[in-house]
Amino acid sequence: MENFTFSTDVRVRFAETDAQGIAHNSNYFVWFEVARVAHLERYAGGYQRIRDLGLEALVLETHVRYLEPARFDDRLVVHARCIDIKGARFRYEYAIEREDQVIADGWTAHATVDSSTFRPTRVPTWLIDALSAV
Amino acid sequence: MENFTFSTDVRVRFAETDAQGIAHNSNYFVWFEVARVAHLERYAGGYQRIRDLGLEALVLETHVRYLEPARFDDRLVVHARCIDIKGARFRYEYAIEREDQVIADGWTAHATVDSSTFRPTRVPTWLIDALSAV
Amino acid sequence: MENFTFSTDVRVRFAETDAQGIAHNSNYFVWFEVARVAHLERYAGGYQRIRDLGLEALVLETHVRYLEPARFDDRLVVHARCIDIKGARFRYEYAIEREDQVIADGWTAHATVDSSTFRPTRVPTWLIDALSAV
Amino acid sequence: MENFTFSTDVRVRFAETDAQGIAHNSNYFVWFEVARVAHLERYAGGYQRIRDLGLEALVLETHVRYLEPARFDDRLVVHARCIDIKGARFRYEYAIEREDQVIADGWTAHATVDSSTFRPTRVPTWLIDALSAV
Repeated sequence: MENFTFSTDVRVRFAETDAQGIAHNSNYFVWFEVARVAHLERYAGGYQRIRDLGLEALVLETHVRYLEPARFDDRLVVHARCIDIKGARFRYEYAIEREDQVIADGWTAHATVDSSTFRPTRVPTWLIDALSAV
Repeated sequence: MENFTFSTDVRVRFAETDAQGIAHNSNYFVWFEVARVAHLERYAGGYQRIRDLGLEALVLETHVRYLEPARFDDRLVVHARCIDIKGARFRYEYAIEREDQVIADGWTAHATVDSSTFRPTRVPTWLIDALSAV
Repeated sequence: MENFTFSTDVRVRFAETDAQGIAHNSNYFVWFEVARVAHLERYAGGYQRIRDLGLEALVLETHVRYLEPARFDDRLVVHARCIDIKGARFRYEYAIEREDQVIADGWTAHATVDSSTFRPTRVPTWLIDALSAV
Repeated sequence: MENFTFSTDVRVRFAETDAQGIAHNSNYFVWFEVARVAHLERYAGGYQRIRDLGLEALVLETHVRYLEPARFDDRLVVHARCIDIKGARFRYEYAIEREDQVIADGWTAHATVDSSTFRPTRVPTWLIDALSAV
């Protein structure tokens, strides 16, 4: 996992499995989000701090490659990093490992918006600085 | 289904199944909610009308009996009725049928609250009238 | 929606919203799946028919662009088409419309596998024929 | 939390919130399940051990009282204990705390079944012994 310096642990919940006996593909986006929230907590004072400023981070685009199925009770390590912060836009990249094997990877693109109007708002400088310093 | 005069149709999604090959128990509350929303739309102008008044209906208590498992792609009929409207409180009862067999039943208890303060607020008279007339 | 000949209707559930007041990004993959299941029912005898043959369709890759937020109770039209069936692989493309405006689009890549071994298995000829005829 | 000797930690995910700005009522059953799985891991070798014996634990009935809303990023402590093991039936009781305040409680009733036939099967003696010793 070169270039990743942050990760968070997730354990596959029974409710996240489906009748194929594996984790449903939609849960990976929830795990990515868990990692983003943990990343923002570590480096930027938490997502709630951003929300308290009247900002929301919308999801503009998501992409996942499912390399190996995840199964009930699997202990996963979700690596995440924030890249490409420009204006109101930023991206996160992810890799999910299970016992040192990458079982999925992906990325999400985001825009910072005003939480009332949902209009794009530049990522605050302190947040850029905090995330760029990682 | 005596005493039920309203129902809505739900089809079990693949994402709602789990590794037991059946619908996960948490989804029944989502289906109950789908029925409440449809019921409020039919009889009271829609849940959004209530939200537009600055009210939310919180869930205070839920109960379900799972009689037979629901499976992927099952076509379910969710019967719902509103009962016991008093002050800021009301309850809904439900029965879920598949091919005329009741496979689950339950109830939910609710309070109407101010959406900003989350303090209890009496159910508006027009809403009581609308729901009582059913 | 040129080139799409199939669509299915989805209504945004309250449970699918998040604290941003919009539908959570993970739900789009559930709606895509609802459309795939409906598409397979229309053109190929249903997903269960495929499962009854001892096959599963795994999700290998997903991509979504979120153009406009979806909100509670929105009536969405999910357009879907199956493309690029080759060997054990196939893809679906999607566009989600609300009142004739495309609010999201995306695609999913799949592999047909044996449901016991999860090893790739060619898409059955009858299924290729059924899906190609659309 | 008298009489509870086991608990597990859960943090409210953003995906678990809804447009009321609080955790959706259906998630409590997922958190209960997370606590059951952790409880079985601690005292009975894990739920997977039970599944490996060809058994599943079905949910027969669920009940929750929501005392205070849970919010995004709340750190919750889910207390759980197994009670009333008889034949193929057993029950779990739960209390969810946030900063030493109980914000929800509830119970679930279960039956042990054969995973192929879904017919009731007595809870294995070793499992009764393991859970009763708590």
